[in-house]
Amino acid sequence: MPIAETPLRLPIPSLPKGYRVAGTHAGLKRNPTREDITLIVSDTPATGAGVYTTNLVCAAPVIFDRARTPGVGFRAIAVNSGNANACTGSRGLSDAERMATTAADLVGVPASSVLVLSTGIIGEFLPLAKIEKGLGTVAGRLATDSDSVVTAARGMMTTDTRPKLSGSTFTSGGTQYTLFGMAKGAAMVGPRLATMLGVILTDAALNPRDAQALLGEAAERTFNCVSVDGHTSTNDTVLLLANGAAGGKPLSGKGLEAFAAALHDACEALAREIADDGEGATHVLRIEVTGCPTRDEARQIARTIADSPLVKTAICGADPNWGRIVSAAGYSGVRFAPDKMLLRLNGTLLFRDGAPVEFDGDAVSESIKAARETLIELDMGSGSESIRFYSSDLTAEYVHLNADYHT
Amino acid sequence: MPIAETPLRLPIPSLPKGYRVAGTHAGLKRNPTREDITLIVSDTPATGAGVYTTNLVCAAPVIFDRARTPGVGFRAIAVNSGNANACTGSRGLSDAERMATTAADLVGVPASSVLVLSTGIIGEFLPLAKIEKGLGTVAGRLATDSDSVVTAARGMMTTDTRPKLSGSTFTSGGTQYTLFGMAKGAAMVGPRLATMLGVILTDAALNPRDAQALLGEAAERTFNCVSVDGHTSTNDTVLLLANGAAGGKPLSGKGLEAFAAALHDACEALAREIADDGEGATHVLRIEVTGCPTRDEARQIARTIADSPLVKTAICGADPNWGRIVSAAGYSGVRFAPDKMLLRLNGTLLFRDGAPVEFDGDAVSESIKAARETLIELDMGSGSESIRFYSSDLTAEYVHLNADYHT
Repeated sequence: MPIAETPLRLPIPSLPKGYRVAGTHAGLKRNPTREDITLIVSDTPATGAGVYTTNLVCAAPVIFDRARTPGVGFRAIAVNSGNANACTGSRGLSDAERMATTAADLVGVPASSVLVLSTGIIGEFLPLAKIEKGLGTVAGRLATDSDSVVTAARGMMTTDTRPKLSGSTFTSGGTQYTLFGMAKGAAMVGPRLATMLGVILTDAALNPRDAQALLGEAAERTFNCVSVDGHTSTNDTVLLLANGAAGGKPLSGKGLEAFAAALHDACEALAREIADDGEGATHVLRIEVTGCPTRDEARQIARTIADSPLVKTAICGADPNWGRIVSAAGYSGVRFAPDKMLLRLNGTLLFRDGAPVEFDGDAVSESIKAARETLIELDMGSGSESIRFYSSDLTAEYVHLNADYHT
Repeated sequence: MPIAETPLRLPIPSLPKGYRVAGTHAGLKRNPTREDITLIVSDTPATGAGVYTTNLVCAAPVIFDRARTPGVGFRAIAVNSGNANACTGSRGLSDAERMATTAADLVGVPASSVLVLSTGIIGEFLPLAKIEKGLGTVAGRLATDSDSVVTAARGMMTTDTRPKLSGSTFTSGGTQYTLFGMAKGAAMVGPRLATMLGVILTDAALNPRDAQALLGEAAERTFNCVSVDGHTSTNDTVLLLANGAAGGKPLSGKGLEAFAAALHDACEALAREIADDGEGATHVLRIEVTGCPTRDEARQIARTIADSPLVKTAICGADPNWGRIVSAAGYSGVRFAPDKMLLRLNGTLLFRDGAPVEFDGDAVSESIKAARETLIELDMGSGSESIRFYSSDLTAEYVHLNADYHT
C-alpha cells in the first residue's frame, strides 16, 4: 500500500558544525521515491551515546551498537530502512558488521568508528548488495544543505508520512552550539521506546559519561512517553554524537545544563511528531497525569490510557467518553482513590468526586474535531508527581495499513 | 449504530431444576428488538458465589454483590443492560439497592436474597422507572422453555451479536445434575475479567466456600484468559447459584470434582464465545503458550500477544507475520531466552533457534482465511507451565463501532 505523504514541518533545522549527511533509494523499498539508505558522517571523532529497546527480542544493529556505546571516536552512522535485520540470528550480526565495515571503507574511517541503524520488516536477511551499492552512492553525496538533510531523514522512514526534524542552538561560555535531531516512527511504537530511530547530533564536546546520562534522561522523559500502539519494537535506538566542532572543552556545569535543556526539547519535539504521525492518526493525544505519589505511577496511568483502544477510538469519533478514560486509569494496576480523581478534556471538567459532572457534550466534541491535538488532563489528587505522555487516536486507517502491510 | 445480529449457536441448553428466567425490552436501549431487562429466579434458596472486576473504578452493582457473596439463601438475579450504573457515586449504590428491592417485592422473596448485574454506558444514573416497569413485566413471564432462556440471555447483551449459552450435565452418587451458563461481552474485554457478565446456574447443592473457590479457579483459567481490547471493565461479574434442586447433600469429593470439570468447560465455552463475538472480529485467536517456568509468565506472554494491535491486524489481514508475534513476547516483561522459542501458526513452524524458518507463506495465509479460529502456538522451551488464551482480531469494523458509539 503506498504511503500518502504529508507536508514537511518547517523550518528545516541546520546541521551542527562538522557533520555531513546524505540519503538515497537503493531498492530496499519497492517505491523508488522512498529513500532507504542514509549516511551520517562526523568530520572529526565524536563522543557517542545510545539508548535501546528493552525488547528481549532485539535486532542485530541494537546488539551491535549497544556493545560500542557510550564511547569516543565515532565517525559515522549507517542507516537502512525497509529491513530491520531483526530475528536474523548470527548471520544478522555479521551482516550488521559488514554494513559498518562497508561504510567505514567508503568514508575512510576505522570500522570500529561506525554505528548502524536498521528498521523495516522483521525476519529477513539484509540485502547486502543493495545496501553496499546505496552506501557507495551516499558516500559520494555527503553534504550539509537542507535538501541533503531532508533526504537523509527520509532514508530512515518506514510508514512515516514525513521526516521528523528538530533543531536549536544554545550558548555556553560565549560559544554558540547547535543541536540537531532526526527521527522516524509511526507504528510498533510503545513505551520503553518504539519502532523508532533517532539521531541527535551536536557540535558541542561532551564526555561519554555525560552524553550517556543526559541522553538516557531525555529519552526517559520523551521517547519513553509516546505510544502509538503499545507494541515495543525490536529495533528502537536513539544515538547521540557530539563532535566538539564548535570548539571548547567538554561541557560541564551550566553549559551541560543548557545542553540538557536543548536535548530535552529536541527529543520532546521528535517524540510528539512520532505520535502525531501515528499510522492513520487523525489526532495526537497529549495526556497529562498529575497528582501522583511517584512518577512511575503517573507514567503507568498515562500509558494505560494511551494504549486503550476504547479511549483511542473515542477520540477518533470526537466523543468525550470520559468513562473510558476513568476506567482505563482504574485498570492500570496503580492503587488510587477514585473519588479524588479529576478529569478535564480540552479544558472542560468531565469527572470529579467519583461522579459525573454536567457539561456541554456537543461543545467538547466540537473542540476535539477542531484541533489536531486533544488534551486529556487527569489529576489523581494524591501527590505532586506528574508525567506528559503522547499517543495517537485509533482509526480504521490504522487497521487498513496494518492488515494490508504483508510480510 | 444498529448491531448486526449473528445466528445463535445451537443447541440451546436446558435450565437446571428449580430455576425460571425471563427477559424483556423496557426502553433502556433505543432499539425495541433488543431486550434490556432479565430476571433469574431460583425457586428455593441457593448458595451464591461471585468473581468481580479488578478495576479500581468499579460499578455500583459490583460493590453491591461483592458485599453479599459468597453466601446462602439467594433467590434471584436482576439484570439490566444499556446502563452500567458505573461512576455514579452514592446515588448509584442506592439505585442498585432499589433495583434489588423492587425485584424482591415482585417475586416475593427477601430483599437480601437478590443480586444485581448492570452493563452498558458508564456515568449515567439508572433509569429506575423503566427498570421497575421492566422487572414487573419479566416477573410475570418467568419460565423454563428455550425461548425464555434465549430472551433472558439477550437481556444481558450490549454490542454482542448473539447470546452466549453453555450447558452440560454431570453425575455424582447416582444423581444427574445440570449446569447452565450464560454470558455477555464483546468489547471492553481485558484480562482480569472484561465487560463481561456471566451467570452460572446449577441444581447441585454446594457449600458457599466450595462454590466460591471453584468459581474463582474456573474464572482464573477461562474468563481471565480472554481479551478483546485489553480494557478491563468497571462492571465485570460472574455469579454462580447452586440451589440443590436436583437433590442430594452439598457435593464433596468426586462429586465436587465432576462439578468443577463441568464448571470449567462451561466457563471456557463462554469465554471463547466472548472472544469469537469480539466487536468487528473476523477471527478468534487461540493462543497456546507452553514451556514456561510459571503459569503467570505464560499468561503474561499470551496476554501481550493477545493485546498487540499489530498481531491482531495481521490476523485480520491473514498475514503470517511471525515477527509481530515474537516481538510481542519480547516486550511482555517476562525474561526468557529468545533462541529457545518455537512458534507455530495453524500448525506450521515459523520461527525456531532465534531465526526465520522456510515456510509456505501463501499456504499459511490461506489457512488463516479458511477458518474462524487462528491457532498461535508458542513454546518458550524453558519449563512445563502453559496457558490457553483467547482473543479476537482487530478490524476496521471495531474502530467504526467504537468511534461511532457515542456517549
